Amino acid sequence: MADQKLTGKIARERIRLMAAPRPPEGVVAGLQALGDATGIVADVMDELGITGVVPASVLKPTIAGARIVGPALTVRNIPQREHVYETARRRVNRMAEFEAHNLALPGDVVVIDGVPGVSNMGGISSQTGKRQGEAGAIVAGGIRDVAHSRGVGYPVWATEVTPVTGKWRIETVEINGDIDVAGIRVSPGDIVLADDSGVCFIPRARAVEVLEMARRKSAAEDAKCKAIDAGTPVPDLPGGA
Amino acid sequence: MADQKLTGKIARERIRLMAAPRPPEGVVAGLQALGDATGIVADVMDELGITGVVPASVLKPTIAGARIVGPALTVRNIPQREHVYETARRRVNRMAEFEAHNLALPGDVVVIDGVPGVSNMGGISSQTGKRQGEAGAIVAGGIRDVAHSRGVGYPVWATEVTPVTGKWRIETVEINGDIDVAGIRVSPGDIVLADDSGVCFIPRARAVEVLEMARRKSAAEDAKCKAIDAGTPVPDLPGGA
Amino acid sequence: MADQKLTGKIARERIRLMAAPRPPEGVVAGLQALGDATGIVADVMDELGITGVVPASVLKPTIAGARIVGPALTVRNIPQREHVYETARRRVNRMAEFEAHNLALPGDVVVIDGVPGVSNMGGISSQTGKRQGEAGAIVAGGIRDVAHSRGVGYPVWATEVTPVTGKWRIETVEINGDIDVAGIRVSPGDIVLADDSGVCFIPRARAVEVLEMARRKSAAEDAKCKAIDAGTPVPDLPGGA
Amino acid sequence: MADQKLTGKIARERIRLMAAPRPPEGVVAGLQALGDATGIVADVMDELGITGVVPASVLKPTIAGARIVGPALTVRNIPQREHVYETARRRVNRMAEFEAHNLALPGDVVVIDGVPGVSNMGGISSQTGKRQGEAGAIVAGGIRDVAHSRGVGYPVWATEVTPVTGKWRIETVEINGDIDVAGIRVSPGDIVLADDSGVCFIPRARAVEVLEMARRKSAAEDAKCKAIDAGTPVPDLPGGA
Amino acid sequence: MADQKLTGKIARERIRLMAAPRPPEGVVAGLQALGDATGIVADVMDELGITGVVPASVLKPTIAGARIVGPALTVRNIPQREHVYETARRRVNRMAEFEAHNLALPGDVVVIDGVPGVSNMGGISSQTGKRQGEAGAIVAGGIRDVAHSRGVGYPVWATEVTPVTGKWRIETVEINGDIDVAGIRVSPGDIVLADDSGVCFIPRARAVEVLEMARRKSAAEDAKCKAIDAGTPVPDLPGGA
Amino acid sequence: MADQKLTGKIARERIRLMAAPRPPEGVVAGLQALGDATGIVADVMDELGITGVVPASVLKPTIAGARIVGPALTVRNIPQREHVYETARRRVNRMAEFEAHNLALPGDVVVIDGVPGVSNMGGISSQTGKRQGEAGAIVAGGIRDVAHSRGVGYPVWATEVTPVTGKWRIETVEINGDIDVAGIRVSPGDIVLADDSGVCFIPRARAVEVLEMARRKSAAEDAKCKAIDAGTPVPDLPGGA
Repeated sequence: MADQKLTGKIARERIRLMAAPRPPEGVVAGLQALGDATGIVADVMDELGITGVVPASVLKPTIAGARIVGPALTVRNIPQREHVYETARRRVNRMAEFEAHNLALPGDVVVIDGVPGVSNMGGISSQTGKRQGEAGAIVAGGIRDVAHSRGVGYPVWATEVTPVTGKWRIETVEINGDIDVAGIRVSPGDIVLADDSGVCFIPRARAVEVLEMARRKSAAEDAKCKAIDAGTPVPDLPGGA
Repeated sequence: MADQKLTGKIARERIRLMAAPRPPEGVVAGLQALGDATGIVADVMDELGITGVVPASVLKPTIAGARIVGPALTVRNIPQREHVYETARRRVNRMAEFEAHNLALPGDVVVIDGVPGVSNMGGISSQTGKRQGEAGAIVAGGIRDVAHSRGVGYPVWATEVTPVTGKWRIETVEINGDIDVAGIRVSPGDIVLADDSGVCFIPRARAVEVLEMARRKSAAEDAKCKAIDAGTPVPDLPGGA
Repeated sequence: MADQKLTGKIARERIRLMAAPRPPEGVVAGLQALGDATGIVADVMDELGITGVVPASVLKPTIAGARIVGPALTVRNIPQREHVYETARRRVNRMAEFEAHNLALPGDVVVIDGVPGVSNMGGISSQTGKRQGEAGAIVAGGIRDVAHSRGVGYPVWATEVTPVTGKWRIETVEINGDIDVAGIRVSPGDIVLADDSGVCFIPRARAVEVLEMARRKSAAEDAKCKAIDAGTPVPDLPGGA
Repeated sequence: MADQKLTGKIARERIRLMAAPRPPEGVVAGLQALGDATGIVADVMDELGITGVVPASVLKPTIAGARIVGPALTVRNIPQREHVYETARRRVNRMAEFEAHNLALPGDVVVIDGVPGVSNMGGISSQTGKRQGEAGAIVAGGIRDVAHSRGVGYPVWATEVTPVTGKWRIETVEINGDIDVAGIRVSPGDIVLADDSGVCFIPRARAVEVLEMARRKSAAEDAKCKAIDAGTPVPDLPGGA
Repeated sequence: MADQKLTGKIARERIRLMAAPRPPEGVVAGLQALGDATGIVADVMDELGITGVVPASVLKPTIAGARIVGPALTVRNIPQREHVYETARRRVNRMAEFEAHNLALPGDVVVIDGVPGVSNMGGISSQTGKRQGEAGAIVAGGIRDVAHSRGVGYPVWATEVTPVTGKWRIETVEINGDIDVAGIRVSPGDIVLADDSGVCFIPRARAVEVLEMARRKSAAEDAKCKAIDAGTPVPDLPGGA
Repeated sequence: MADQKLTGKIARERIRLMAAPRPPEGVVAGLQALGDATGIVADVMDELGITGVVPASVLKPTIAGARIVGPALTVRNIPQREHVYETARRRVNRMAEFEAHNLALPGDVVVIDGVPGVSNMGGISSQTGKRQGEAGAIVAGGIRDVAHSRGVGYPVWATEVTPVTGKWRIETVEINGDIDVAGIRVSPGDIVLADDSGVCFIPRARAVEVLEMARRKSAAEDAKCKAIDAGTPVPDLPGGA
């Protein structure tokens, strides 16, 4: 990593970590093995007193049925100062989520504290993320070219979809810092879990604990589902999942 | 019904009726036989001066193309008082929509006057409703585990989707009372009709009248569609559907 | 066109043009040939200092993956004055988007400055538009019968979906005038381009210029996509698309 | 009126009427004499089956306690097509609400179907309206310079307040046509009544009827207020106001 | 109380308690004696793990600077089923907040789980509440006649202001039951504290504890304010309030 | 400044500048001398192609009629990670806007890129800001204790008002960095101008130019106002303000 080649789109000192911290052994595979994961994990986080869940009504998935798990690689965007009429003409492009793709390790989830009303990630960017082996992206802000990202199988959860580019409108000011995503503080390396119901951000330090408890809960839910299929009357269904 | 076994999740006296009143003979099948039903039925309700229509932009379907008809079995949820940090730890679960599934007769539609920001119905609950033979559910509030409910073929129209459970956050305080669903008063036994365009709540006492008028309107629309396919010039198309 | 038969649903003098101005030669086919068009075209419009882009989060597509290009045929609706309780009973239908279908030339896009909260276009109307050879419709306001319009393959981008009819609630007061669609001024003959990311309204007088620049940009993007597929490291990807 | 001098800011043919129709004799004074008028008038309109009431939560007053009554002089604004970066530099001012002030007769209420996000009426415009003897203005859209309009005692009910000018962003396309104000159709000459609770638009043809019924209702309310002050127990208060 | 005369506007069995439980001795006076109370009390509730605070941006005060403390007398409204066109003509008035005024004891705060878009409390109702000695009202929903309620000095915190009556549109279905007010569960007898920053609902059982802690906090804040006035440098200001 | 004593509430290295850059000579006094300043300045910024204006409908003033001018001292807050239930009990206070007050020079405007739903500035903080000689504050996010800040004459423009503290919920992560305030990028030292119509953020480097042009425009507006008072007919009023 010492001699990682950079894109130059963002100053080196604004990259707080060259790589998001790696998830504890087995956590990603363990979470992938659970069914209906965001519901179960949200319950576990409730019981452990951990915040970090965002509804799918807020961060909307681009690919129905998609489900991802992986460590967060964070990006922060803010508006540019100059008038877009001028920056577009002069092609002043200050977006640097490509640096995040450059730094991404396989399985990473790019998480963007973005700018509303404009695209913080387009189709070519999504294709690049896919090639880098990323699991997908979470964007608090707009994205575009959803047919493109769907086409390459790169799922994104975003608050908005718009053709309007962020290139001339926003600036990436930090990579792998702590960010605010839809009201949740996300740190690089936090475990991101996303599906049709929403997104959970699990603090890295608590991921093993969350996984273990989620496994128990999942087993209990499976038993309950079997009881339902077996025709157990509602009042006799096992409780507690 | 006299010795219907209950779940105990809600006090017996808070169940206003043990079963939603049955729809008039033929109404459910009659409405099912109509194409594009919510539009036609909304028109009939307009012409009869009956309110009761909610847009799909408000109550959003989980399964595109799904269409249900059936009598409403109503549920009312309100927030719990204790802090979720404490109720989650102590597992204070006050949701009782399982009692609704327990009481449901085949074809019923569970209609929940729910709490926003949290899930008022999850995947196991949906699976239970499916097994009980319900047509589906309408939820003013959040739901979760949509992959699960889609998987078992149980369609839901809800205002929100979120992984955040209502278990520790809400309490079911009434079953089969009159409720407020997205601004419409719904009584148990009202006929619920839902499709991709939205939801109609037809007062039970007027359901026969609505069906008859809808049939005539539907026949007129069919004639119009045939005229279109036959190449009739626009100014010569039959009016009045 | 001189003796075009009209529907009589709107006064002749309220039709500002009997046909939307035709697009410059080759523009429609040229735009159709581009991939991911709204993103590219929005960029071109930015660089040329042209406004006119609306997010898919605002104008939501009814058919995922649909993509249309064509000249705008504009319609303006405002509320009726009488109480809907009375107009519904007396069947006072003042909608006249059928006149737009009547006037439509193949490839036209019907663009409606509509009324929120009610349907400005239903299933039979969509089917009529399809038969007339229209590319689809853009509706600032509600639509209904989306299963119907999907069934006949007529894509619509709309701000809302609702079963509530506009028939007794709104009046079409102008065809082929200048309108306001989600904050963008649209003139008849403006080139409409819509896909999963949103809608671009290209002023007719600038359409050739926009197309040419979009072609160059598209070629550059294709090159970039190939470089990604070829495994070019992120810092070495070609810039500037 | 034949030789009324115009401002030239809008084409003569876009002025549908040189003056808003005059209110029936005594209606303005009669409504002014009532206390708490929008509540009473909204009730009367309900009982007569007339729509036309907008909440103060939507059209917010600039001057607490202000109350106006008068005939509507209507204005319709839509966005300009050119980029504001260019129109601002070239000073392309297409607003023409000054023509409305020019045409206003004493007591008129300027009612603007405006553009959101920008100012449709500023301080100098308000001062001009005041000098012309207008009662005030209703603006569906932004206004600015509220200290100025308050300073000259010209009350405005508007949906937004913003320093951003409409001058280079919008165009006045019609005066004294039928417009849509927050979902209500308003015609020139409709009687506008506005206070801290909101705005009522009374169709001119029904104004006498509304006033008469409002007077009776007001008298009943006065009696009720006196009964309250007199200490009548709540169950014995007169009903029916 | 046994022979309390009722208004008859709501069935006797729908009144869960004839009077809201009385606050613990000294609590109301104690809270009134604190300055800037909602901020301090919200802090105390945070520290004790009690939910129950609603922003003034949601429940907006009608009288700037007003501040009230008192036990909640609760009211629940839901929509009527019949069309307002018919109920208004037939004068089907199902609102019963006057029964709440009838039952109110001096110092009570009427808290309404109301219907949005319509008025749940008007001027005459406010005047009645004032005469009964109520401290004021909290309304999740619309209110009207704010000039009237301001005139008699009866402060209300409401989500909306509108001239549209609820009389023909809503029905009061419960008095002194548990309700949901802007996401907070409120029980009769809960202590309501409201000022320019918002509303706190303090569970009755914890009110003494909250008051005591609030007093200590208030004293600390007073000390801090004095230190500021005395010119203490910012880094030396006492912490911890 | 070298030995400025700090509060220790935020790490020294997160303070990008110990003082906001001073405004160019005469700019503050010059802007203060203009009447109706945000409207005029917004116009000048439009004509110069500078963005940076936020409506009063978004950033709402706490004191009607207040007007401030001064250089921005910026603060950035994001959510804390731990559950508020725990941080409140343990009194984990990570807000550090007091450091901003500590660093403030007379006339500074504290501008906070805050967290929605909670208070980013309370009464004691406002009082401290007042004592330090600040002109006031702009807060994208909630504030509280508005009676307190009004009482000491410290005006704030904020997006929300709520009693809910940010102390245990948010963390100040940067002082005098570049921030995003309601979609506008603000740098320390930008000139802030705020009144009843909204807020203008003028880039420091362009402040002299903006002031000069604003003066000319203001003189033209004064002339126009005089012409109005003098009875000049509307069509003859001077144009161009």
